[in-house]
Amino acid sequence: MMENTVLKGSLMNHHGLFVSTINTLASDKQKAIWLPKAFKFEIIGCYAQTELGHGSNVRGLQTVATFDKQTQEFVLNTPTLQSMKWWPGTLGKLGTHAAVYAELILDGKEYGIHVFMVQIRDENHRPLKGIEVGDLGTKLGDNANDTGFLRLENVRIPREHLLNKYQNVDADGKYVKSEKKTNPKLHYATMMFTRGMMVGGASAALARASVIAVRYSCVRKQGFSNPEDSSFTAPEVQIIDYQVQRYRLFRQLSLTYVLKFVSTWMVNSFAALEGDSKQVGVITDTSALPELAATSAGMKAIASFMVANGIEDLRKCCGGNGYLLSSGIAPLASDYVWQTTAEGDFVLLILLTGRFLLKSLAAVRKGPLSGPVEYLNVVRDPEFDPTKLAPQQPTSVEQLMDLDYLLSLFKFRALALVLGVGAEMQKRVMKGQKQAQAWNSLSLDIYNAVRAHCLYFILQIAVNTVREGKESSERAAAEKLVALFANSIIMDDNWAGLLTEKQVRYVREATAQLLDQIRPDAVALVDAFDLPDSVVNSTIGKYDGNIYEALYEYAIKSELNQSDPFKGYYEHMQPHLDREFLKHGNKVWNQSKL
Amino acid sequence: MMENTVLKGSLMNHHGLFVSTINTLASDKQKAIWLPKAFKFEIIGCYAQTELGHGSNVRGLQTVATFDKQTQEFVLNTPTLQSMKWWPGTLGKLGTHAAVYAELILDGKEYGIHVFMVQIRDENHRPLKGIEVGDLGTKLGDNANDTGFLRLENVRIPREHLLNKYQNVDADGKYVKSEKKTNPKLHYATMMFTRGMMVGGASAALARASVIAVRYSCVRKQGFSNPEDSSFTAPEVQIIDYQVQRYRLFRQLSLTYVLKFVSTWMVNSFAALEGDSKQVGVITDTSALPELAATSAGMKAIASFMVANGIEDLRKCCGGNGYLLSSGIAPLASDYVWQTTAEGDFVLLILLTGRFLLKSLAAVRKGPLSGPVEYLNVVRDPEFDPTKLAPQQPTSVEQLMDLDYLLSLFKFRALALVLGVGAEMQKRVMKGQKQAQAWNSLSLDIYNAVRAHCLYFILQIAVNTVREGKESSERAAAEKLVALFANSIIMDDNWAGLLTEKQVRYVREATAQLLDQIRPDAVALVDAFDLPDSVVNSTIGKYDGNIYEALYEYAIKSELNQSDPFKGYYEHMQPHLDREFLKHGNKVWNQSKL
Repeated sequence: MMENTVLKGSLMNHHGLFVSTINTLASDKQKAIWLPKAFKFEIIGCYAQTELGHGSNVRGLQTVATFDKQTQEFVLNTPTLQSMKWWPGTLGKLGTHAAVYAELILDGKEYGIHVFMVQIRDENHRPLKGIEVGDLGTKLGDNANDTGFLRLENVRIPREHLLNKYQNVDADGKYVKSEKKTNPKLHYATMMFTRGMMVGGASAALARASVIAVRYSCVRKQGFSNPEDSSFTAPEVQIIDYQVQRYRLFRQLSLTYVLKFVSTWMVNSFAALEGDSKQVGVITDTSALPELAATSAGMKAIASFMVANGIEDLRKCCGGNGYLLSSGIAPLASDYVWQTTAEGDFVLLILLTGRFLLKSLAAVRKGPLSGPVEYLNVVRDPEFDPTKLAPQQPTSVEQLMDLDYLLSLFKFRALALVLGVGAEMQKRVMKGQKQAQAWNSLSLDIYNAVRAHCLYFILQIAVNTVREGKESSERAAAEKLVALFANSIIMDDNWAGLLTEKQVRYVREATAQLLDQIRPDAVALVDAFDLPDSVVNSTIGKYDGNIYEALYEYAIKSELNQSDPFKGYYEHMQPHLDREFLKHGNKVWNQSKL
Repeated sequence: MMENTVLKGSLMNHHGLFVSTINTLASDKQKAIWLPKAFKFEIIGCYAQTELGHGSNVRGLQTVATFDKQTQEFVLNTPTLQSMKWWPGTLGKLGTHAAVYAELILDGKEYGIHVFMVQIRDENHRPLKGIEVGDLGTKLGDNANDTGFLRLENVRIPREHLLNKYQNVDADGKYVKSEKKTNPKLHYATMMFTRGMMVGGASAALARASVIAVRYSCVRKQGFSNPEDSSFTAPEVQIIDYQVQRYRLFRQLSLTYVLKFVSTWMVNSFAALEGDSKQVGVITDTSALPELAATSAGMKAIASFMVANGIEDLRKCCGGNGYLLSSGIAPLASDYVWQTTAEGDFVLLILLTGRFLLKSLAAVRKGPLSGPVEYLNVVRDPEFDPTKLAPQQPTSVEQLMDLDYLLSLFKFRALALVLGVGAEMQKRVMKGQKQAQAWNSLSLDIYNAVRAHCLYFILQIAVNTVREGKESSERAAAEKLVALFANSIIMDDNWAGLLTEKQVRYVREATAQLLDQIRPDAVALVDAFDLPDSVVNSTIGKYDGNIYEALYEYAIKSELNQSDPFKGYYEHMQPHLDREFLKHGNKVWNQSKL
């Protein structure tokens, strides 16, 4: 499955979603029909779940599959405008098949969402009868991905097209559960793998942006080194040497590395669970799998959200030239940003993790927890006193570069926010508020608590990862990046009521010092991503540093420069101009008639 | 000048920059030649300042204008790649003229940057001799604006083409200062007007985004109202009624209004200073003009930065459909975002205000300050004790909705951060650090202090504006928006060390309550912008609420849907497909040969 991640553009969904849906939900007999063809691209499929009116509420999908016992067929319909499939990749123009999510109806009774294999185009690539299919129109980015809509009107498929590994509808129209059970362990592990891959994708996108922005900031100079210099040719400062610029660059660089550590850990843990004993430093105790899977929702959400913002801030770091598509960083931002919404909107995923956190808080009274919520076990101590949670006051700036001290701050925040919102929730329910209402009225707080929880877990993984390495200059550099990551989170988020004025002062000073310490390694740290120019694909992020030449060469090739005067000049502009006046050129002043 | 703001696309720079440069810097005789032609669009001009290698360091521009006494001409050159003009709007394809910023050289001596009128294209719209001109290539957004490059090789213009209202070069090649002096009052007022217009533009862009996101969030439903409902057709919740969504929507709505108040105040103050006595509630005391102008740099920076982020967050609030260009909100984000970089990068503008703040801090010991830095006067009191600055602890949640109490918090933060960074700066300089080095090492802190300073001033203007109105339901609604704005700033920024745990708790609760109080007015508050559908230009923000119909109609018209199969199908896709298999359609299961 690893190779999927390098697939770009239109066939990503065929491989990543269509094939894996068959793999997971189809019976062996069904697999035998469709899988070999899909592997050889003899059919192209899409994953038709999302509808115009329904995304995150999958249970509310309105496409229906009604069983017709007479003909032994399912009749598929998208009865309303809102029930049309909307967004599936590979659907609009490419797909021959669709794995259609639809509500199963047997004898007028609802059986929930099931997946049906539907051929949508014929051998001449025309839509089959009852099928209307097309493209959604231009998007903000990622336009190499064909995204489409699909309407079904009485489309009939054989009974055997219900993907039936885990359940079936028999010839009499009875719903039959298969003896095969989904393996919850595998289910959780797969979830973590998928989300780990998405965190890895986030890190990869940010890596590209970091390469561009760091290289540009080394070549770009602006502002005289000596403010007293009066000549316009006086030497200037590399913009990477301005503190604010340096902070913006290095914090994203540190996030890139941290997310890479996290994604590697998540994916390797999956491999270890699958039985690959070569993996080290990863989960082997599977008892915490549900907790890990639940936390991974928030981690994917936070990673994609931070990376979308991070790419955009790095783009701004490239000034005006970051606005040119030729910069490579401009399209990167708009191509990436849908990932905060798709496969689970970030807010919903965060609240999903929130639900689990509050459940954990209830469960911890009954027995100790493990995995990412282990830190909640302190409340089991009958002597537990929340007022004594706060970490000791720092005695030096260096303490704010110490990974253990930083971990203690992150742990403290997570604990304080989770306990705080848990107590408030309980209070409101005790006062008679309905669970759902209390939940909604506290969602902003829950959101913050989940963020704190996930960032604490992310920091733990990052710290463990860098400590796996032998003492070396590479490890020292990695430790500094992780420390900067932690400090930048403290600078960003509102830690009011959690940190003292002294801690805040030390965080600022530690950040300033870390920036200077990381500076000598900055170029090596982006070169280490080993992205060739063809992948970075940027005029301003070129390895050889000849960015101004590249910008100019690209401009010359602009489509608008291929005709002169521009298209429309004769009709729209020339009639307005004073061509007699223009004939004088720059000698106009000397014309006596003026 | 007001009508300039409604100009869109390619001629904005002709009017807004070329014409106003002539107006400001040309002598009456010069104006007589070019202005009437420019007004009638008989010539089209651009403002050629920025170069490939220089943007914010205007003093470092490398284009040179050398005087040739023999011919009484200036010889203009962009001698290096980096000195080519790069970015000017209206230059690449449209401009006949350019106001060229160049270093004046007389007898080998540098005289600084001056502006020269250069005709660049002839009566057939071909570049004149020595001129290479073209388009920069596609940008992330705002592609209706023609942005170009310009290289000059020994381009000769008459001596009289130096815009010479304030200085001139005489026939002997001597530099002569004119007797006309720039009016500093007018200079500051113009600065504030321009920045006020940009803040207004920021508010207008966010208004459009708010209209779309609020309307969409009222139509879009997701998630069953009653979680126990088991049918897929059960009623669902409008997404505006989820707390996190509501917070994200209303905080931007409040920012829209606050920035509108601020921009109106800035522009009206300009009018009042220009002698329009009808203006009320604006500056009449011109002694604080320099302070106001200095603060306006940071205000423009913060406004454009917050609005760029705000539009993008509102775009995310529209889920997947916010990623379609047809949503209107997707192109809005990418069309707007250059404004955080152009006309002064936001970081540089913020640090500019920072320089002024530190100067003010030094000046306040010598005499009281007025205008936006008036609050610093407290340090003149010999009894002044910074430890007693903190506002009283709130005694109720309502206090966090009280505009005076919120003002006291913002004032406290501004004062604490400005004094803090001022003291640290002084300490470092006393220890022997160079001014420039100390400044750079504290830039992050200065950035935060300026943000606090500007947001305090913005809040003051907003509070004064809403209080000008009579008691009414509109005023009550506006007050709630301003209170939400203030609370959202507290939620966002790091107030650690400034707020107590109790204040934080009250802020969260006040925010939650304000969201519920604003909800009934939300639709009216966006309708009040009075933007017709033709301006909102959005499938998902339509006034009539028929967003799903609009999305579908737009999709049908997609260019990709105009040919079927898609272009490239026969060459690239058909050869791979198993067309025999596809012939069976959905009957494939029943084919005996399988």
